[in-house]
Amino acid sequence: MTISEKTMSREVQLAARPQGAPKDSDFALVGRELGQPGEGQVLVRNLFLSVDPYMRGRMNDVKSYTPPFALNETMTGGAVGEVIASNADGLSVGDLVLHDQGWRTHALLPAKAARRVDAMDGVSPSAYLGILGMPGLTAYAGLLDVAAFKEGDVVFVSGAAGAVGSAVGQIARLKGAGRVIGSAGSADKVAHLTGKLGFDAAFNYKDGSVTKLLREAAPGGIDVYFDNVGGDHLEAALFAFNTFGRAALCGAISQYNATEAPSAPRNLGLAIGKQLTLKGFIVGSYNHLFPKFVQEVGGWIASGQLHYDETVVEGIDHMPGAFMGLLDGQNTGKMVVKL
Amino acid sequence: MTISEKTMSREVQLAARPQGAPKDSDFALVGRELGQPGEGQVLVRNLFLSVDPYMRGRMNDVKSYTPPFALNETMTGGAVGEVIASNADGLSVGDLVLHDQGWRTHALLPAKAARRVDAMDGVSPSAYLGILGMPGLTAYAGLLDVAAFKEGDVVFVSGAAGAVGSAVGQIARLKGAGRVIGSAGSADKVAHLTGKLGFDAAFNYKDGSVTKLLREAAPGGIDVYFDNVGGDHLEAALFAFNTFGRAALCGAISQYNATEAPSAPRNLGLAIGKQLTLKGFIVGSYNHLFPKFVQEVGGWIASGQLHYDETVVEGIDHMPGAFMGLLDGQNTGKMVVKL
Repeated sequence: MTISEKTMSREVQLAARPQGAPKDSDFALVGRELGQPGEGQVLVRNLFLSVDPYMRGRMNDVKSYTPPFALNETMTGGAVGEVIASNADGLSVGDLVLHDQGWRTHALLPAKAARRVDAMDGVSPSAYLGILGMPGLTAYAGLLDVAAFKEGDVVFVSGAAGAVGSAVGQIARLKGAGRVIGSAGSADKVAHLTGKLGFDAAFNYKDGSVTKLLREAAPGGIDVYFDNVGGDHLEAALFAFNTFGRAALCGAISQYNATEAPSAPRNLGLAIGKQLTLKGFIVGSYNHLFPKFVQEVGGWIASGQLHYDETVVEGIDHMPGAFMGLLDGQNTGKMVVKL
Repeated sequence: MTISEKTMSREVQLAARPQGAPKDSDFALVGRELGQPGEGQVLVRNLFLSVDPYMRGRMNDVKSYTPPFALNETMTGGAVGEVIASNADGLSVGDLVLHDQGWRTHALLPAKAARRVDAMDGVSPSAYLGILGMPGLTAYAGLLDVAAFKEGDVVFVSGAAGAVGSAVGQIARLKGAGRVIGSAGSADKVAHLTGKLGFDAAFNYKDGSVTKLLREAAPGGIDVYFDNVGGDHLEAALFAFNTFGRAALCGAISQYNATEAPSAPRNLGLAIGKQLTLKGFIVGSYNHLFPKFVQEVGGWIASGQLHYDETVVEGIDHMPGAFMGLLDGQNTGKMVVKL
């Protein structure tokens, strides 16, 4: 037996369950020694870590579609990294891999739990955490499958400057939407939506009643609503829907930090007469669309037709701050942590 | 020219738009003379008139899927009657017809607007206002098409003792539901559901929290919810839904008399993780299912497998009271007015 070389991983653990908005003291940065990979394992040096709104839900101790994070254990999440030691067939040192052992600088994991991805010319590996990864697939599947988008539809997306929302709006445009409308939380984001991202209209939801702002942006009503926000945005969409409108319910970021039950969309009864369909979904149910998604969206990226933004925060020690900033809307496009 | 024989029709008009629950003074009974049928017209003596919850919405001056009733004009609604004079090909004196000129004892209308129906042995013509008419088709289409019912599903229906609800539960049972649960507003109705109608479980929603009552009745959760009520019932269903649950949103009787926005459901966010589909509908979009519906449901009635109830009120002068009683839950099964 030889004495294994040790690797020090710096990792973020959940120190306390946030009450409302998370704060610094809810997180703890710890060091952990990792050994060499056992049979079938690889050791990965992470290059980029993902922070995503859904993680907020996992910080609560409630049953959801993903189990809660444990206290005083390292959290998990999307990560892309480079294999630095391999004891498994199929993965070699230097391979770029996508996996779920985020919130840490290094990961020791079964090769089966890592997926090799291709480095693309001119595209940062972080794209696999965003436009070519889970958020991109969420946008693609939610718009095209869940909301059954069809050419000519007027599409409204909330949280439109985020990783998912910016992809939704652009995919809708590229697929022939009649009109694409987005909401975001600052004048800069709104300008970005109607500028570089090619939305037909956009508004800052902090400027007044969402119902009124949406009515002005979509005087002829909407056919599809991609909901990242919930609450007053969903209520506004219900008012704006044309007959046979469809909503893909993807997220409710307006409520993730809430400590009280939200008030209802008070106009849900409109769904009857307007014959609306509201459909909740999680991206995990749409993995079968991945190959088609990568081909189509990868093509749009390569041809420059689809633009994606990243907000990059550097260093594992800034990761809790990045996550809190994400919930506060400080990102444009996908927020990642670069190591 | 001959002097036409006149027929006196007694009719119910909307005298005032109800604020909250309708009251006697919102209605006026008037007499109106009808002449003989003109070219292409028939004169019908109505036998049964329909009162339905959707009519409450038409009494408000708001845009909906049907236009509002006009003040000081005779209201309309389902009616079945006998042709007593015809000036049209295809309809003869003595024919039984279904038409939309209800709320009156006699109707002069284009033959094209009347549909001849067959008198069935042992079945009152009033069935065409209920189980073999609009409410029956609503149940059939909502359960099988809108909610995409499949064998083994656990089905919950609110307003289960009503015309639509009692059909929903029985169709679900006949189609192989795993379990059928109903809610109603009295102990007698609950006993009727689990007795004659063959529901597996039922509860009186006035006995406590609907969420708690439903959890007890459906400990394994529900797959399909047929919503006639809205509000707290929909909230309870959202809590009880299994993954990929489906709701057919048909009515919101809890809110029809409301003068304030409802406070429930506050848990719509559950639709995301549970991947639920909520779909509003109106029966007018499902007329293409009518032939299949009449064949299948008519067969179940003939064989005695499907039971239907009627609450019969006699006399046009009692029609406003019948309607008010309907909104107050005084019916079991379809409520009709016999002339």
